[in-house]
Amino acid sequence: MKLVPGRKERLGDQLYGQILDQIIAGTYREGDKLPSESQICQAFQVSRPTVREALMRLHADGLVATRQGSGTFVQKRPSGHLTRLAPVSDIAGILRCMEVRMALEDRAAGLAAERRGAADLDRIERALAALRSSLEAGAVPVQADYDFHRAVATASGNALFAEMLEVLHETIHQSMTVALGITHTRSKERARRVIEEHEAIAEAIQRRDAEGASLAMRYHLHRARQRVTDGQREL
Amino acid sequence: MKLVPGRKERLGDQLYGQILDQIIAGTYREGDKLPSESQICQAFQVSRPTVREALMRLHADGLVATRQGSGTFVQKRPSGHLTRLAPVSDIAGILRCMEVRMALEDRAAGLAAERRGAADLDRIERALAALRSSLEAGAVPVQADYDFHRAVATASGNALFAEMLEVLHETIHQSMTVALGITHTRSKERARRVIEEHEAIAEAIQRRDAEGASLAMRYHLHRARQRVTDGQREL
Amino acid sequence: MKLVPGRKERLGDQLYGQILDQIIAGTYREGDKLPSESQICQAFQVSRPTVREALMRLHADGLVATRQGSGTFVQKRPSGHLTRLAPVSDIAGILRCMEVRMALEDRAAGLAAERRGAADLDRIERALAALRSSLEAGAVPVQADYDFHRAVATASGNALFAEMLEVLHETIHQSMTVALGITHTRSKERARRVIEEHEAIAEAIQRRDAEGASLAMRYHLHRARQRVTDGQREL
Amino acid sequence: MKLVPGRKERLGDQLYGQILDQIIAGTYREGDKLPSESQICQAFQVSRPTVREALMRLHADGLVATRQGSGTFVQKRPSGHLTRLAPVSDIAGILRCMEVRMALEDRAAGLAAERRGAADLDRIERALAALRSSLEAGAVPVQADYDFHRAVATASGNALFAEMLEVLHETIHQSMTVALGITHTRSKERARRVIEEHEAIAEAIQRRDAEGASLAMRYHLHRARQRVTDGQREL
Repeated sequence: MKLVPGRKERLGDQLYGQILDQIIAGTYREGDKLPSESQICQAFQVSRPTVREALMRLHADGLVATRQGSGTFVQKRPSGHLTRLAPVSDIAGILRCMEVRMALEDRAAGLAAERRGAADLDRIERALAALRSSLEAGAVPVQADYDFHRAVATASGNALFAEMLEVLHETIHQSMTVALGITHTRSKERARRVIEEHEAIAEAIQRRDAEGASLAMRYHLHRARQRVTDGQREL
Repeated sequence: MKLVPGRKERLGDQLYGQILDQIIAGTYREGDKLPSESQICQAFQVSRPTVREALMRLHADGLVATRQGSGTFVQKRPSGHLTRLAPVSDIAGILRCMEVRMALEDRAAGLAAERRGAADLDRIERALAALRSSLEAGAVPVQADYDFHRAVATASGNALFAEMLEVLHETIHQSMTVALGITHTRSKERARRVIEEHEAIAEAIQRRDAEGASLAMRYHLHRARQRVTDGQREL
Repeated sequence: MKLVPGRKERLGDQLYGQILDQIIAGTYREGDKLPSESQICQAFQVSRPTVREALMRLHADGLVATRQGSGTFVQKRPSGHLTRLAPVSDIAGILRCMEVRMALEDRAAGLAAERRGAADLDRIERALAALRSSLEAGAVPVQADYDFHRAVATASGNALFAEMLEVLHETIHQSMTVALGITHTRSKERARRVIEEHEAIAEAIQRRDAEGASLAMRYHLHRARQRVTDGQREL
Repeated sequence: MKLVPGRKERLGDQLYGQILDQIIAGTYREGDKLPSESQICQAFQVSRPTVREALMRLHADGLVATRQGSGTFVQKRPSGHLTRLAPVSDIAGILRCMEVRMALEDRAAGLAAERRGAADLDRIERALAALRSSLEAGAVPVQADYDFHRAVATASGNALFAEMLEVLHETIHQSMTVALGITHTRSKERARRVIEEHEAIAEAIQRRDAEGASLAMRYHLHRARQRVTDGQREL
């Protein structure tokens, strides 16, 4: 088994995708020990830093856990739903995108609470209403979700935040499709939580609470990321 | 005096630029009270939210301060150096760019400490060495500065961070030209500080200290921003 | 009307309490403009910094908002429930206590996720179970709430975090009595949210997610604080 | 070798102290591999969670590093200076104290920037002047250092922050004695850096820059902690 670096794709990402693939497929199940670093190096013909990077990402996603001195164990097995919603090769990209969004939107939401005008609040409320009614109707409101986050970014008063989201547009749409798709297949419970998380962001921006808005945004994106990798649980 | 909204440029930014212009020109000096919100509305024919946004930005940059109940006062007058290095109309853009960079690079530096490989450290060290020798020689090492920040973003293991920097490339170069240009015209003291700030980032990444790296990056960008708006002081 | 500084009590806090009192009493209603700084100085015979401090605190609690150039307006009127649960003179103390807790417990929760042992998880789970069953039975589980937060602080592996909570013990109990008391008088909806917030903290600690645990704790305390000052809303 | 739990002292802390002792003594040198978890369990007759906690702390202090799959290695050897300034048994306590201070003072400094009055600035400036002149004279200004941090805590407008520092008073004095003691035995370079870090905090509070003040405080405490465990380096 040999990894061939694709254009612009890091070996660590490819290896990450391959291991994730085997965890989803059930080759390694929850509680199973992964092969050692050296074994992975040999099996995939990659360097040790590449293996470490891949394991680090799996660790950051909460999929594996390292027990000091004993090795790396599978912690969580992403839902089969996930693979029906996106090819495994895209999951790494989606999680990378979430990582950048957490950095950008955390700050944008805080600034939005300080600087939003009346038109900003309107845009945010309209997107929230569309998101709410669509989720309650059992639909997958990708556009409303994107509109909400874009409206918050715009309300920051710094056009670059919205521009950055536009650059990430395609991957964000894809990750929302996956995250909301999972929500769709789950209980009403989950739809309610997704709505509440967005409401908390909107309310904090409305009452000019910068710390609260930034916190609510980070909390939402952190949970959204959990929902992508942790399909079996109700989050 | 009437503001005409340019393409993609917010009225708030334009107004920000105009007031900044008058502060730099000395129309309003340190300690002077700015006209009231209503007076500014009338003078520039803009809405109240636009005025608030512009004042908010001036406030965030530490250029004005609001004393509750008494009005808004000029706190700081950016150096004339600034206007020799960049047209006033660009300053707003530079500060907006810093705002986004603080969000992105804070997180990227933390991840770099966790995930950097040997090649990443090499790239960071080379850029740092170039930055150091160039600053000590009294030059304006814009490329080395950019290379340093790009190397840190790349070391995050998430290619999107470096891509985001590339999108901002032009404005980053411009803001580095201004910030390093100011450094250049100031004492050796300031060059030393700029070098030390970069060293602190590199060291934290080297010793895998995620909190320290993230902290050192934010500290550096926050001070760089101060240096742009606070030309008279040694920072 | 003259404020007499009590032992160890700051004038700013007293003034804060007095204005809060009048807002709760309905002397000033939502949307009403408060007297100007100078008027307050005269009415209460206090210095301008004291007035500013009191207004700053009311602002931080989201009770008033400043519109640049136009003055300070009442934003929210805390529930009458609040005054039945605690004398107004204690509210300032409770909010101060929340402020310190946000600083301490945010960090403690992050460390707990990294360092918790099996005994820590047991303690956290037991407190959570007691909190859940008590809230669902319509009771006011102050002790279980305190036990939960203490167990998290202990799980940080740094005994000083729990010691700090012990020092604040009395005020924390009081603020939990108020916050849970409000929850008790409200809908099942609110009890559910309080349970979910604690569950999110416990889950993140359990899965060794330091960022998630720290975030969930800050989110919980920020909302608990909102619940204290914002009795009318469902939070 | 058997650890006997002292009053109020956790086994993990004791074990931490013992291993730190051996690193300082040179039994394990930089680059050396520590015994495995199981070997440490046996040698000290402690449980695995106790060993993990001790290693986690050494890791957090940057003294050891874990290479996935290969074990735990000594990363840094604290200066012999350290042991001349404080018994090894106290180092764990000092580092624990720094951990709590980072949580508390970060927030206190941010609030101080928002709420400080003229008297607060005076107190901060006087403490800073005493610190500066004493350090420049080659002395060890523990009291001035403490006064500075206490003045910032007081300026937060929330008396509980200063009360928390008072509770930690003894350990803070001890850790300042160690940190400043190390500074004293090092170059003028280091004294300069310590002064600059305090100046950055004071300046941000003075210009009402909450984010900057909070950032400068965290940066300072993070570096102070580094100075304690990293005696050989110039920080």
